[in-house]
Amino acid sequence: MKQKLSLVTLGVADLAAARLFYEDVLGLVPAAETNESVAFYDMGGAWLGLFGWEALAVDAQVAPEGSGFRGVTLAHNEPSREAVDVLFAELRERGVEIKKEPEEVFWGGYSGYFVDPNGHLWEVAYNPFMDLT
Amino acid sequence: MKQKLSLVTLGVADLAAARLFYEDVLGLVPAAETNESVAFYDMGGAWLGLFGWEALAVDAQVAPEGSGFRGVTLAHNEPSREAVDVLFAELRERGVEIKKEPEEVFWGGYSGYFVDPNGHLWEVAYNPFMDLT
Repeated sequence: MKQKLSLVTLGVADLAAARLFYEDVLGLVPAAETNESVAFYDMGGAWLGLFGWEALAVDAQVAPEGSGFRGVTLAHNEPSREAVDVLFAELRERGVEIKKEPEEVFWGGYSGYFVDPNGHLWEVAYNPFMDLT
Repeated sequence: MKQKLSLVTLGVADLAAARLFYEDVLGLVPAAETNESVAFYDMGGAWLGLFGWEALAVDAQVAPEGSGFRGVTLAHNEPSREAVDVLFAELRERGVEIKKEPEEVFWGGYSGYFVDPNGHLWEVAYNPFMDLT
């Protein structure tokens, strides 16, 4: 299997509301393939998809019920501590729910977390050891 | 915010066991930054990380308990229906838990799902409309 993550799909309760968050609040530009039932964003290698929570469960043939921690976090890296702070300031101003204010972390980086309207956790990090920006 | 997904981190109960699955069963090659507490894989744009389930929750400052559907799927795309079938045959032979045998799906592609030992869902898909291989 080629070492390639093509797409991460997040289940959402309301696609229009989720698009408002990702496009109007975070500023992402949807891909041309976006339609009424699914939104796609080219995230610089892997793509991000937003799809109905129930529909995603149906597609995977699993039960849609779930609660609590999902054991998955998505990370967006920035090139400096300052850039992380600037982004968090913007997120806070736009009413995004901050889960963890950015701080120095045990592995030597600097990071914080926000959560999207459907409970999906995003880390924003500066990593001095790996440039994944 | 630059449109970039840097890293997807999956919480795992046992890192050594999770590495066996991703490296020996799926065949992924770990990045040099892999250490005793975290494994990294360069997935062709975004990276994949494996990290302790509890430690990941602690890092995000959320409670670690969770159950059921997580509302997140990761997808690995292949360039043809045949390549999807070949990969599923290999996965089946290696004892991977198949959640959905590959089939023609409503959006015009061909896909199936498997699950990793920690319950994270992976789709393997051929998408004739978007080349994310």
